[in-house]
Amino acid sequence: MKPLVIMSDFGLADGAVSAMYGVAYSVCETLNISNLTHEIPQYNVWEASYRLIQTVGYWPKGTVFVSVVDPGVGSTRRSVGVETVDGQFIITPDNGTLTHIKHICGIVSAREIDERINRLPNSGESHTFHGRDIYAYSGARLAAGVIDFNGIGPSIPVESIVELPMPKPEFDGACIQGDIDVLDVRFGSLWTNISREDFLRLDIKHGERVDIMIQNGARLIYRNSLIFARSFADAYIGEPLVYVNSLDRMAVAINQGDFARAYNVGTGAPWTVSMQKSTGKEPRCGE
Amino acid sequence: MKPLVIMSDFGLADGAVSAMYGVAYSVCETLNISNLTHEIPQYNVWEASYRLIQTVGYWPKGTVFVSVVDPGVGSTRRSVGVETVDGQFIITPDNGTLTHIKHICGIVSAREIDERINRLPNSGESHTFHGRDIYAYSGARLAAGVIDFNGIGPSIPVESIVELPMPKPEFDGACIQGDIDVLDVRFGSLWTNISREDFLRLDIKHGERVDIMIQNGARLIYRNSLIFARSFADAYIGEPLVYVNSLDRMAVAINQGDFARAYNVGTGAPWTVSMQKSTGKEPRCGE
Amino acid sequence: MKPLVIMSDFGLADGAVSAMYGVAYSVCETLNISNLTHEIPQYNVWEASYRLIQTVGYWPKGTVFVSVVDPGVGSTRRSVGVETVDGQFIITPDNGTLTHIKHICGIVSAREIDERINRLPNSGESHTFHGRDIYAYSGARLAAGVIDFNGIGPSIPVESIVELPMPKPEFDGACIQGDIDVLDVRFGSLWTNISREDFLRLDIKHGERVDIMIQNGARLIYRNSLIFARSFADAYIGEPLVYVNSLDRMAVAINQGDFARAYNVGTGAPWTVSMQKSTGKEPRCGE
Repeated sequence: MKPLVIMSDFGLADGAVSAMYGVAYSVCETLNISNLTHEIPQYNVWEASYRLIQTVGYWPKGTVFVSVVDPGVGSTRRSVGVETVDGQFIITPDNGTLTHIKHICGIVSAREIDERINRLPNSGESHTFHGRDIYAYSGARLAAGVIDFNGIGPSIPVESIVELPMPKPEFDGACIQGDIDVLDVRFGSLWTNISREDFLRLDIKHGERVDIMIQNGARLIYRNSLIFARSFADAYIGEPLVYVNSLDRMAVAINQGDFARAYNVGTGAPWTVSMQKSTGKEPRCGE
Repeated sequence: MKPLVIMSDFGLADGAVSAMYGVAYSVCETLNISNLTHEIPQYNVWEASYRLIQTVGYWPKGTVFVSVVDPGVGSTRRSVGVETVDGQFIITPDNGTLTHIKHICGIVSAREIDERINRLPNSGESHTFHGRDIYAYSGARLAAGVIDFNGIGPSIPVESIVELPMPKPEFDGACIQGDIDVLDVRFGSLWTNISREDFLRLDIKHGERVDIMIQNGARLIYRNSLIFARSFADAYIGEPLVYVNSLDRMAVAINQGDFARAYNVGTGAPWTVSMQKSTGKEPRCGE
Repeated sequence: MKPLVIMSDFGLADGAVSAMYGVAYSVCETLNISNLTHEIPQYNVWEASYRLIQTVGYWPKGTVFVSVVDPGVGSTRRSVGVETVDGQFIITPDNGTLTHIKHICGIVSAREIDERINRLPNSGESHTFHGRDIYAYSGARLAAGVIDFNGIGPSIPVESIVELPMPKPEFDGACIQGDIDVLDVRFGSLWTNISREDFLRLDIKHGERVDIMIQNGARLIYRNSLIFARSFADAYIGEPLVYVNSLDRMAVAINQGDFARAYNVGTGAPWTVSMQKSTGKEPRCGE
């Protein structure tokens, strides 16, 4: 028996998540079930993918994740199960939810769920709640050892797993420009796609300053020189800072404040962040 | 030992739910406890009743549910335990929380909680937190097998269990009119009290159109011809649709949008929904 | 093996809490983990302290609590573990989170976490997520019995545990004046620091009236004569009341309403509540 971890965009205000738990415990009453989160913004497959890469690696080998962010429920999108390089399993609609896991962590094998076998008995009339009838049910069977990974359904090529576009940061020799992948929702930090390794090419040490520029398309939102801090404690209360987040990517924050709210910064395509070693003069980045 | 599932209107922002967990684990440290939801709107017994019927049937026989939505805490309302037709147990104040379970699922026996026995030792001074001192404690004892169902207290007639009014849809030969029972909070769908069987009398097939009218009292809120969809994937993104929800009732939604927010639709007494087979001309329903 | 209970100000919208669970289950897959709350307002150490005292006593002896409300992550603040008088354990940054537990419940021994031993292997590069790498990891090891309390690290004096200022109510012979410690978030009740014992000195019986005055600094916010109710059921719906809350302190509420929202009442330093036995004339309290 292995832990079962469930994620969705259902919220916790109604009975949907509890119905999924009930189905899983009906497969095996002694399962160990917990939530990744159920507050993924509705239909936001990108954020679902990000929350998986933020979390999966901290769980024991064999853990089964079920993700249900599924704008195409009832369409022809496939239902799949994959095994990661580290031996965890993820059950999900194949709609881009596995983007980060495929790129960063690695998938060693993939199977399409055979819904003739892996579907809650007598649930055939419901076309709208696959999270309960297919994903929670299949995930529970795998976590409980009722089926092994082969029992999910027929093997499919790992390459065929759907990916969302995942732009890489660009480095022009002096300045590195990247995206804002996601917000640290609660604390308002910006989590960029610039890795610590990328950032090290700027040759900036802890305590030194980074010129930073944030744009929404062509519009300048923020330009300043920030401290590169080892942790929040290196900045004054209320001071903005650049640091390495828990995913080993560069992040921008205000110590005990909310950067995203302070400057109305969002995530996704139009937003860019540029970083450059500070000269102590005007922030140059992006010029 | 059986699963213990807890529901309330306490929210999760303070320590109330965790105190209930602590009391339950003090009865038995190896209990399997989880949440149905703790975000029932305050004192909304109707919604508590609805969330039970949405969930209970997916849990194993013997599961014990504890519901604490209790506008009358400290009053003379009874505390009861019931056994459903399918062998699940529910512990709750007897204030209408069992309405849907009694009507739709069925109750086979009922007992009043004997608070001389089934009350957390040394909690007599507290008159405001029966959720912790009586309901969680009694539910945990039942789930852990410390008492059996008889041990709850004296038997009472099933007919005496309090019910809220539960209006039925009306069918005039062409048009069926019902209520909006509840919102699918996260996705903004309207969940009506019109069952799939009722709806079938309109002789509308998947892909055909339904004339729909929504009123708040006499005021017209929405009139349109919508597709009767097997699932959201049958509608364009942004298109409204009628579908059968996971409780086998008719629901109205916007694919990847929020119908309730778009038209400011609420639930309860003044709201009605009418449905009629479309003629391809002006929506006639309600005329 | 003992229950592990986790509290933080992280919210549940991202993967942070689930990463903590994963680390804990990696220590021991059969641990019993649950949440106290993760909705402590950001950096609000006072409220974290309050939620602990509201909850800890209801859990079995040996339960391990992990609290991560940590404005000083990465600073020189200590990481500690303490044992309460009742035999529960709490793992937390030593920043005032233990204020109420130390004052009201009592701490029998304290140890500083030795991070050379009690830190997630290979997590040395992360300076920002001690909740996952140190606190969850150490708490899991203690709850699972991998280490005993001595294994946390070197002993430190209980007196050295950091405390926030905790003002006491003042009684002038007729009137008692106290603070608003915290709100009952969901129901909008004011929870004061006036204990039931303090209140008894006013010689007011259930059903009698209390003159109450609420001030923000020198500004009068509310003055009225309220019923001292055994429970909400003693007041009419919509009527304000004074009662003894589940922590044995005096609270002010509106039956089925929201007192805090109705009068814009907050918590902390500038807010005071005065109570006095009513004479049946004008409320005199505070004059």
